[in-house]
Amino acid sequence: MAGATSAGIKYPIGQRYDLGILLSTKSCVTAGAFTTNKVKAAPVLLCKERLKRGGIRAIVMNSGCANACTGQQGMADAQEMTELAAKNIGIKKEEVLVASTGVIGTMLPMERIRAALPKVMFSPGGGHDLARAIMTTDRVPKEVAVKTDDFTIGGILKGSGMLHPDMATLLCFLTTDAPVEPNFLRQALKESAAISFNMLTVDGDSSTNDSLIIIANGVTGGETIRVGSHKARAFQQALDKVCIYLAKEAARDGEGATKLIEVRVSGAVTLHEAQIAARTIAGSSLVKTAVYGADPNWGRILAAAGRSGANMEEGKAELHLGETSVVKDGTPVKFDKESVVNYLKGNEINIRLNLHLGRGEATAWGCDMTEEYVKINAEYTT
Amino acid sequence: MAGATSAGIKYPIGQRYDLGILLSTKSCVTAGAFTTNKVKAAPVLLCKERLKRGGIRAIVMNSGCANACTGQQGMADAQEMTELAAKNIGIKKEEVLVASTGVIGTMLPMERIRAALPKVMFSPGGGHDLARAIMTTDRVPKEVAVKTDDFTIGGILKGSGMLHPDMATLLCFLTTDAPVEPNFLRQALKESAAISFNMLTVDGDSSTNDSLIIIANGVTGGETIRVGSHKARAFQQALDKVCIYLAKEAARDGEGATKLIEVRVSGAVTLHEAQIAARTIAGSSLVKTAVYGADPNWGRILAAAGRSGANMEEGKAELHLGETSVVKDGTPVKFDKESVVNYLKGNEINIRLNLHLGRGEATAWGCDMTEEYVKINAEYTT
Repeated sequence: MAGATSAGIKYPIGQRYDLGILLSTKSCVTAGAFTTNKVKAAPVLLCKERLKRGGIRAIVMNSGCANACTGQQGMADAQEMTELAAKNIGIKKEEVLVASTGVIGTMLPMERIRAALPKVMFSPGGGHDLARAIMTTDRVPKEVAVKTDDFTIGGILKGSGMLHPDMATLLCFLTTDAPVEPNFLRQALKESAAISFNMLTVDGDSSTNDSLIIIANGVTGGETIRVGSHKARAFQQALDKVCIYLAKEAARDGEGATKLIEVRVSGAVTLHEAQIAARTIAGSSLVKTAVYGADPNWGRILAAAGRSGANMEEGKAELHLGETSVVKDGTPVKFDKESVVNYLKGNEINIRLNLHLGRGEATAWGCDMTEEYVKINAEYTT
Repeated sequence: MAGATSAGIKYPIGQRYDLGILLSTKSCVTAGAFTTNKVKAAPVLLCKERLKRGGIRAIVMNSGCANACTGQQGMADAQEMTELAAKNIGIKKEEVLVASTGVIGTMLPMERIRAALPKVMFSPGGGHDLARAIMTTDRVPKEVAVKTDDFTIGGILKGSGMLHPDMATLLCFLTTDAPVEPNFLRQALKESAAISFNMLTVDGDSSTNDSLIIIANGVTGGETIRVGSHKARAFQQALDKVCIYLAKEAARDGEGATKLIEVRVSGAVTLHEAQIAARTIAGSSLVKTAVYGADPNWGRILAAAGRSGANMEEGKAELHLGETSVVKDGTPVKFDKESVVNYLKGNEINIRLNLHLGRGEATAWGCDMTEEYVKINAEYTT
């Protein structure tokens, strides 16, 4: 269940949801991954502590203020948010996690949060409102559910800027009714994050508030899924699907973006090299602006791969923009410029680079860079 | 001496200088640093080879085409450029270096270069034209000279985009009349580059063509300057001055930029950590857009430092924007927002972060990110 309300944290009260709670009907097995930024917001520090003890039932979350770089007061405020949420639900504060997103370096308006939190009402369909309550510069709420014969995995995500893969990115909350063993859940989340959120970049900046949390309440019953269980693979596949879907939606909704960019690198010496090459290409400002301008300036793609740290032999590289081959054996292929320009005018752009050196393969997602990105971020707090 | 002409490489012939030669009256001691990008343009490969043998007298250079990702034909064209230049001057092609900048993945228009190169005329003041001939998206030519009692060091530089520190950046050609020992020159260039070009970022992309070359013809005569010579320090200081001036000018003239950003990080555990923190802040899209918008959103500066890899204890960080303290002991300081906004509306912005952990200190330079940057790079080849 979930619910959200408008507390007036950044925008006038009543204008948009900015505060909400995700609630499980019973205590959950949980796993989480958090920002690797040395500057960690108070809610991140509190979550890490509470996840060690386990027994989580709820997550309270807000947008409009990141509660980061806020010192001891920030930590006291994060604590109080979980206390207020716990009181509303009738559970203990230690059973509540907390997440915040928004401006760094401002204090939470606690009077408004104190007034608003008791108003949060819960319903099974409340996740739709909650997905809205965590939006900052997102244009659309991002939610998904994958249902198998045995269980369901659902998720909401926010994330549009300050978005660059580093163990976890953005705020993402996943739920499942599957019965899972804690170590298996941690491992499964790590594996899914590695091929989804960690392969996502919008602008190269990693947030102070990144939090990826999954809570599993096991209400479907049945045998507990653990490493090697016959349902472990189905669970991993469903979780991968959920995470990849949400990661792609985050890239598609990147700040100011008009296009989703998918970069597939194959033939790298190792998986890691494929990953860094794909992420570097997806993150290159010059690739992103060229895609925005529908400019088939493929040299920027090779230049980005060349600085990624991945091994590369220029004479072996093969590059496709969509279905069109533009480089083979490291040298330019004559192609119909007009048709490639038309392809680049679409809203999903596929870049495929084969390094022809080994078996490493990886896919990364990003978006184009537009004047609108600059506008959004030049005017963020003023 | 130097000279330039209009070959019509990218723009119609006669519209702008795009081809030129730097010439020493006698054979030079040389040192160079080149891109660490795995994709290296043909001129870079040729320079590296020729610098091993030494005995350089000239550098031929063009803008409008990078001669990168051009395979064997590209290497043959680079060779021919040095041959044509050598013929014009009346020296051997092995005495000539070559540098190109512009679009990656297109072939040099050799007929036009063959027609134009013999027209290059030399004069002692020809460096001004040469500085123009290597401009791409640069708005202004960049040149400097530092004169001491004993010698002069001069330089020209181009660089506005695809600019990110990585051993060497952009095209930069330095000359001096000082008599120098080769190992000393190499060492001195490395030291100067470390605190100038390698601390410069415009957009995070490292070029395939980065070339930093110094040629020293020793015509002032006198004792050869070597490590430990009494003039070694004066030479290093003059070279530092030249390199830092040119690096700052490159940042100031970054694509679409309206402001120069100088980031000074002190109190880092090591010099290296100060460098990565300063460069990460200067390179952050979110910091760059906030500066553009004169938005005192300082949380982005701490967030960038926090992801840089440098050690950081949030509770110790101290941050100044210009002369205004905005963070002390890791927590927000109340400041007059209007005066900081006014400061950020200026065209030179100083960011000073003291981590209060050790003695590492470094300065990096960058520029703001504007809609114009996007515009320039969305429309680069189309």
